[in-house]
Amino acid sequence: MVNWDQVRAEFPVMGDRVYLNAGTYGPLPRCCTEAMAAAIAFETTEGRACDRYYEKIDAVRARTLSLLAALLDVSTNDLTLTCSTTTGCHLVLAGLGLKPGDEIITTNQEHHSFITALRASPAKLIVVDIDDVDDDETVERLRAVANKRVQLIALSHVTWTSGRILPIERISSIGPPLLVDGAQSVGAIPVKAKQLGCDFMIFSGQKWLLGPDATGGIYIHPNWQARLRVALPSSYGHQPWAGQPHDIPLLGAAKFTVTPTAIPSLASWNASLSFVTELGPERFERAKQLAQKFYEMLSTHVAMVRPPDATILSFAPSCNAEKLRAVLESNERILTRTIPHKGWIRCCVGFWNNEQDLNRLVAAILKHQALLNGNC
Amino acid sequence: MVNWDQVRAEFPVMGDRVYLNAGTYGPLPRCCTEAMAAAIAFETTEGRACDRYYEKIDAVRARTLSLLAALLDVSTNDLTLTCSTTTGCHLVLAGLGLKPGDEIITTNQEHHSFITALRASPAKLIVVDIDDVDDDETVERLRAVANKRVQLIALSHVTWTSGRILPIERISSIGPPLLVDGAQSVGAIPVKAKQLGCDFMIFSGQKWLLGPDATGGIYIHPNWQARLRVALPSSYGHQPWAGQPHDIPLLGAAKFTVTPTAIPSLASWNASLSFVTELGPERFERAKQLAQKFYEMLSTHVAMVRPPDATILSFAPSCNAEKLRAVLESNERILTRTIPHKGWIRCCVGFWNNEQDLNRLVAAILKHQALLNGNC
Repeated sequence: MVNWDQVRAEFPVMGDRVYLNAGTYGPLPRCCTEAMAAAIAFETTEGRACDRYYEKIDAVRARTLSLLAALLDVSTNDLTLTCSTTTGCHLVLAGLGLKPGDEIITTNQEHHSFITALRASPAKLIVVDIDDVDDDETVERLRAVANKRVQLIALSHVTWTSGRILPIERISSIGPPLLVDGAQSVGAIPVKAKQLGCDFMIFSGQKWLLGPDATGGIYIHPNWQARLRVALPSSYGHQPWAGQPHDIPLLGAAKFTVTPTAIPSLASWNASLSFVTELGPERFERAKQLAQKFYEMLSTHVAMVRPPDATILSFAPSCNAEKLRAVLESNERILTRTIPHKGWIRCCVGFWNNEQDLNRLVAAILKHQALLNGNC
Repeated sequence: MVNWDQVRAEFPVMGDRVYLNAGTYGPLPRCCTEAMAAAIAFETTEGRACDRYYEKIDAVRARTLSLLAALLDVSTNDLTLTCSTTTGCHLVLAGLGLKPGDEIITTNQEHHSFITALRASPAKLIVVDIDDVDDDETVERLRAVANKRVQLIALSHVTWTSGRILPIERISSIGPPLLVDGAQSVGAIPVKAKQLGCDFMIFSGQKWLLGPDATGGIYIHPNWQARLRVALPSSYGHQPWAGQPHDIPLLGAAKFTVTPTAIPSLASWNASLSFVTELGPERFERAKQLAQKFYEMLSTHVAMVRPPDATILSFAPSCNAEKLRAVLESNERILTRTIPHKGWIRCCVGFWNNEQDLNRLVAAILKHQALLNGNC
């Protein structure tokens, strides 16, 4: 049995805060700071352009991939590191070599970073409205537009706005290659990337995986590793001097690596990945149960958007959402975010939260909603 | 007058090492470690998804751009951050929208990362041999292949192999847009990007700018900021929610931002950029003079590739270069690198070096060259 109070104590930020924004940036465990500080101290003292450093960075990369592979239930060969979810999207889009006349299907529930990346492709973007429709209807609407010109279906696993889990397995059977944005699923709920049937899954390190910023990764199905073009190559995906001219791509998904990830950041992420892995699958169960409790108690006071599928809950306050968010942060030390185009407040619940967090949140909402309504 | 012994003492790695590989990774000053440790400690303790954090990251980004702008003698609006030199190359190539039938001119002196990125473009790569030819002949050979199909000339400011400075101003007058790889010039020698006439200049943070890894930037000439397509957009180049749908690109070069740079890394880079900036232009003079001394003393003992234009010197040892490099590192704590396809050893000289470094290097080369020759 995990002692959750003890686990929570590993997050210095929890001292006097209610942390409900892992969907933007997760809370960082203490080990994260220590590992980053140790990594940069090593680099400063021992130098970087030397064999010991190269051994160290190979080891930290390999260890990160191995922790991520276990988490996603895939082979390390099928993963590579990125420094943002969007980078993964770029490498897939560029690699597919899309042309005018091609089409990409997406939904109206996607994150602006993802949509912005998709819109830059020469392919036409077909945005399917999945507001207020069930899974059957969602699959039906996607299938209805999946004509021969469609080269990709690109959508979220868990929506960033309201935490809905989309039926990825059923969507994968529609036919076109499937790129899944796992930014709000990987680390938040159990994710078996291969079993879900996706061809590509991109994810963030700094959200539910409790890593420092500018970390992330991509899963590339083995079938695609030979078919996808390496359109944005870098030395991080190549073995310098292994061949002529100059170098040959690494094996597996590694050859698609677009950018370096800062080594102190990787060392730090490594520490938090080890930390969460050691907690075991119970952490997902705890987060799910807490999200359910948050929903039940909140729904007696505010208009909830939907019951929790995963670990994200949104509600529509009776006052200005951005004003309420700001006052929750500044006066109550409760960290949430708004979904601006909807006027919602989003709460991200993790294993690090507890019932006191919930009580503080509810009391603060009631107090400030009333005050802000009075001021409107 | 700068006290160079005192400056050197700010680099913990110099304690017992001769550091001659800033062309791969620069030595890190102590302030770099402190700034990174402080940044991650702040994030762990105060949390990231909060207003104070956003203010902090805006400030660290702005400060970094302002230090880089001063260094390159350009406006902050004409720069954006990358996390590698190659990322800058990708954004230019993708933004130009090159097609089969287009051509890119480059040289046979380029770094493998740069060439790998150029080769991935649909344009045909014309590689001009500039081995052992002077500046006049170099410009002539480049001009001779600059036909109407050429959409870009892409080459180094300072070659990574032997430290030759290419005549960028004259090359810029040939006609096609000019992308300059400044990885071995920016921070090593004074660089005025605009005056050089380049359209794009990409550079690394982790080499001569003494930053942590996964840092870098790109200068984009104002004329190109409206013409170049934002082909690899990300939320780091957009102002979320400023417009509909969802967001609008930032102004100036910022809108081309492809990836985030880790904030602790930026805080750290910021510290080293401030550190070098405070040393003033005298640092360039010192490095140049030291490089000249290294050349003079080394050339009496080994076959130098060429006299120093900038701060990079290469020589062809009489024994196996990689064996010599390895033994210099392991037995003598002298950090260099090889240029594998040439069989050279490269020495990168900076203001942090001194004459004792030179004496140790020469003595070690003589000793181990003899030993290795005996073993061959």
